[in-house]
Amino acid sequence: MKCRVCGQEANISLRAYNTALCADDFTFFLEKRVSDTIQKYHLVEKNDTPIVAVSGGKDSLSVWHILNKLGYRADGLYVDLGIGDYSRESLEKIKKMAETLKCKVFVFHIRKIFERSIDEIAKTIRRVPCSACGMIKRYVMNKVCIDKGYNVLITGHNLDDEAAALMGNLLYWKEEYLWKKSPLLDGREGHLSRKVKPLFLCSEREMAAYALISRIDYIYEECPFSVNAKSLTYKAILNNLEEASPGTKLQFIKGYLKMVKGGEETTRDLTYCASCGYPCYGDKCNMCRLLERFHIENKIDFAVYGGQP
Amino acid sequence: MKCRVCGQEANISLRAYNTALCADDFTFFLEKRVSDTIQKYHLVEKNDTPIVAVSGGKDSLSVWHILNKLGYRADGLYVDLGIGDYSRESLEKIKKMAETLKCKVFVFHIRKIFERSIDEIAKTIRRVPCSACGMIKRYVMNKVCIDKGYNVLITGHNLDDEAAALMGNLLYWKEEYLWKKSPLLDGREGHLSRKVKPLFLCSEREMAAYALISRIDYIYEECPFSVNAKSLTYKAILNNLEEASPGTKLQFIKGYLKMVKGGEETTRDLTYCASCGYPCYGDKCNMCRLLERFHIENKIDFAVYGGQP
Repeated sequence: MKCRVCGQEANISLRAYNTALCADDFTFFLEKRVSDTIQKYHLVEKNDTPIVAVSGGKDSLSVWHILNKLGYRADGLYVDLGIGDYSRESLEKIKKMAETLKCKVFVFHIRKIFERSIDEIAKTIRRVPCSACGMIKRYVMNKVCIDKGYNVLITGHNLDDEAAALMGNLLYWKEEYLWKKSPLLDGREGHLSRKVKPLFLCSEREMAAYALISRIDYIYEECPFSVNAKSLTYKAILNNLEEASPGTKLQFIKGYLKMVKGGEETTRDLTYCASCGYPCYGDKCNMCRLLERFHIENKIDFAVYGGQP
Repeated sequence: MKCRVCGQEANISLRAYNTALCADDFTFFLEKRVSDTIQKYHLVEKNDTPIVAVSGGKDSLSVWHILNKLGYRADGLYVDLGIGDYSRESLEKIKKMAETLKCKVFVFHIRKIFERSIDEIAKTIRRVPCSACGMIKRYVMNKVCIDKGYNVLITGHNLDDEAAALMGNLLYWKEEYLWKKSPLLDGREGHLSRKVKPLFLCSEREMAAYALISRIDYIYEECPFSVNAKSLTYKAILNNLEEASPGTKLQFIKGYLKMVKGGEETTRDLTYCASCGYPCYGDKCNMCRLLERFHIENKIDFAVYGGQP
C-alpha cells in the first residue's frame, strides 16, 4: 500500500477516508484536521487563553502537544483522583510533557481536600466512581479557568468518545443531553468557561497512531474504574459497525452535527450557586453539596509545576 | 422460577418486565399487550375493515391469529415473491391459517405480472432485492386495500424490527424517515390506506414464544435475500445490549415515541401518481415506472383463497 500523498510505503490505512498515508503525511493530515476543526467551529480564537485538561492518556497529551505545535500556547490542568499507581504514573507523564512544552500544569489533588480517594468519596454518596469523578472534574476544570484567568477549557474527547456517548443518549433518549453535543460549549462570563473539543472528528485509532508516531509518552492503562463503563460497550459496537462500513462513526457524528444545527436549543433554567457562583439547577451546586457532606470548606487550590522560568 | 400470576412453574422469563410467566398467563399477557397497543394508539376502531399483510413468518401469522381472537375480523394479503420453495411453503402456511380463521387471503403473484422473480426484477433495475421488494410490497398492500375495500393495513413488524430500523436511521441520520416511525401511519382517503403495527411493543423473542405456545405453523426460514441485511446486524447489537440491560429495546422505542410526540412532522410535498393515483414525489410512482421499464400494463389483480362459504 502506497501513501496517497508522497507515494512512499504507507504506514496507516484510513478506510473511513478511503486512503492510506505514510507516518509523516499522516502526522500532517491529523494536525491539519485538528486545526481545521478549531477554525471551522471557532474553538480557539486569537487572544484566547486556553488550558488543556490532561489525564495522562494519549488523547489529552496529544491535543496538548498539537495545540502548542499549531501555535496555541496552552497550559495544562490535571485532576489527581488519588487512585494509587494509576494516578501517580499519569502525573509523571504529564509533568514530562509540561517540561517538553515549557508549559505550566496545575494539579488538583482530590486527597488533599477530601482526604479520600475518588472511590471512597463515591461510596459515601452512593454513586458510581465515574459519576462522582465527572462532577468533581467538571467543577475543578471550571474553577482553574475562573481563578487563574483561562477563558477556554480544552478536552481530549475524540470521535469514539462522542459517538459512544451519543449512542447511549439515543438508546435512552436522554433529552437533557441529547441535542447539546458539540465541539464547542459556550461559557457564561465570570461563571462558566467555554469548553471545546478539538479532537471531535479524530477517531481513537487515529489518535493512538498519532501518539505512537509522535513518540508521546502516555499512560496505556485505562482508569481502573472504567472497566464496566457502558461507553466501552458502545465503543465496541461502533467499532464493529465501522469495520463492516468504514466511515460509520464519522457519518454518525457529522450527520448529528448537521441536524442539531437546524434545531432549536432548549435549556432548563440555569441559576448560579449561592455559595460559589458555579452554574447549577437549584440554589446550591453539587460540589458545594458534596463538600458540605464531608464538612469541608470550599477552598480549592492548585499545585503548579513547570512553566517558563 | 414461578409464574408471577398463578404461582405454577414459569415457562418464560421476561427480564424486560422483571417477571416470569407460565404458558397460559404469557399468552394472556401478550394478547393483552397487543390489545392495549391497538386501543392506546387507535390502530383499529369499530367499523374498520382491516386486512393483514402476511409473509408466512411467525409475526404476521401471529398478529393475524391474535386479531381474530380479539374479535377484529381481518382477512389476509400475501405477496408471492416467486422465490422457489421459500415462497411456495410460505403460501401453504398462510392458506392453512386462512382456513383455520375462516378468513379470505388475497394473493399477488409477482411472477404472474412481471414474469420474473423479485431478484431478477431487482437485477434489471440495479437495486438490491430488499429495496425492489419493499417498493412492490408497499404498492400492492395499498392496492388491495383501495381495490377491495379494506381501510386498515396491518403488518407484523415487532419491537426488534422497529428498534433495528430506528438504529439504522439514527446512525445515518436519515431525517426523511427518522421522525416518522409510529405504530400508526395515517392514510389519505382514496389514495393511501392507514398502516398499523399492533406488535410495535412486542419483542421478537416474545413473538417466537407466542407462536410456539399457540402452535402457529409458520415458516422458520428467513427470506434468503435477507442474510446480509444490515437490520440483522442492528438486531444482534440490540440483543447484546438487551442481554446486559434488560428492557433496553423497549426503552429505546418508548423513549422515541414519547419524544416524537412533542415534535412537529415535516413532510415533503406529496403528490399523486398521474397514472394510478398512488401517492408519490414527482409525477409518476415508482411502481408505474417499474412496470413501464418492463413494458407491462398496470393491471394488478389478486388470487383469492379461503373465506367463509
